[in-house]
Amino acid sequence: MATVSMSEEEINGIPAIHAVLADRASEPLPTIFFFHGFNTSSKEVTSYFGYMLAMAGFRVVLPEADLHGKRFAGDREARFGRFWEIVKRSIDELPRYRDHYEKRGLIDGDRVGIGGTSMGGMVTLGAMVAHPWVRAVASYMGSGYFIDLSRTLFPPRRTVGEEDAAWRDAVMAPLINHDAARHLERLGDRPLFVWHGERDDVVPFAEAARLRAELSARGLDKHLEFVSEPLGVHRVTHDAATAGVQFFVRNL
Amino acid sequence: MATVSMSEEEINGIPAIHAVLADRASEPLPTIFFFHGFNTSSKEVTSYFGYMLAMAGFRVVLPEADLHGKRFAGDREARFGRFWEIVKRSIDELPRYRDHYEKRGLIDGDRVGIGGTSMGGMVTLGAMVAHPWVRAVASYMGSGYFIDLSRTLFPPRRTVGEEDAAWRDAVMAPLINHDAARHLERLGDRPLFVWHGERDDVVPFAEAARLRAELSARGLDKHLEFVSEPLGVHRVTHDAATAGVQFFVRNL
Repeated sequence: MATVSMSEEEINGIPAIHAVLADRASEPLPTIFFFHGFNTSSKEVTSYFGYMLAMAGFRVVLPEADLHGKRFAGDREARFGRFWEIVKRSIDELPRYRDHYEKRGLIDGDRVGIGGTSMGGMVTLGAMVAHPWVRAVASYMGSGYFIDLSRTLFPPRRTVGEEDAAWRDAVMAPLINHDAARHLERLGDRPLFVWHGERDDVVPFAEAARLRAELSARGLDKHLEFVSEPLGVHRVTHDAATAGVQFFVRNL
Repeated sequence: MATVSMSEEEINGIPAIHAVLADRASEPLPTIFFFHGFNTSSKEVTSYFGYMLAMAGFRVVLPEADLHGKRFAGDREARFGRFWEIVKRSIDELPRYRDHYEKRGLIDGDRVGIGGTSMGGMVTLGAMVAHPWVRAVASYMGSGYFIDLSRTLFPPRRTVGEEDAAWRDAVMAPLINHDAARHLERLGDRPLFVWHGERDDVVPFAEAARLRAELSARGLDKHLEFVSEPLGVHRVTHDAATAGVQFFVRNL
């Protein structure tokens, strides 16, 4: 019977959970970097994706997001104002993660995919725009419309509770380069799996619906696999997770 | 660095995920049976508890509930009417699970704990009442008030969409013996961890509040560890999972 090995390791000081079939642990394998959600989420509670994807033959790495777990000093209030900085940082860190495992000979060629939930779903869409070498992407309950969404979802704040438009613009400026609104073609040129619950009360389903509509309107939806659940909320269902695994099996 | 081995195996034909530290896999260890939730949940998407608890030194077994995964023929509508039968079956199957691992010499003495989320949280409370040999219990987003709750939450139905009071009473009758309302003393005589989000819109927080109030009123709350999150919904947070792991470390 197949056995998955899961352990915590560090990528240049950044903690990560590494999941892989035990008897193929040292082989080059198609590799998926999987990003967890914000605040109440973590690489640990998202590690079921490690188990499920590793069972399907992938090497899976779940890095710890900045200001989470061991990278967190404990000020939750301040963290709410830094959501978009964390998204940007994860997008920027991805090449380092890939290099780390590539140097160790653990990635099969250029077979690198990414996935993530909620904040991690946003990271995946931004990283798909930023990094053309990513081959397949699964975004759960995310959004690529960073600039628009940052007006209502965790607006960047320098000081807890205080509005500061100049600060918001400064934080969001580097994310313009990764925004779906400006780089739709980058989200249409490779396999993309999008899952969103239609009753999501954290990240609105309208985000996913907009992406589908805009890709479709421009004829960029050939590589899009869009799955929604009418009763779905901000929680990954078994069917949703399984559909993502099958997507990677077909596309990575 | 510690490595967790996770694999799927069968307990007398019932699929289960088995998680354990790789270098202690064949040793007798304190063992936790962990029950997943209903319908959109599964042993797979709940397997992060396997990883997290195994990292802390426990052997963890996540059995597949009846009418889920390989035990499911595919009629979702009919399954909604059989929620409470599934709860009862899991409570009844627990001794078989324990015997299976005990015979293989994999359980350290009588150090057996149980945990579960949502429907699995109900199984754990019922099993705590039914099986005095269970030593520590963690119930997430569950309820032990089976008879009362079954009037509003997934009332038993023989035919899809059709009320049938006689059938409901027949299905619920065997659960009276495991109901918290009748056996409060069984829920107060061993370590019990209860976690519930105060904004849960699936299993009402009132279920956990009632249990705490009734245990407290009778002086039965000495072994109770009660954790709620004011903004918590029907989703296990990282802090909630971590608190449960620490509970088992202290009590099993």
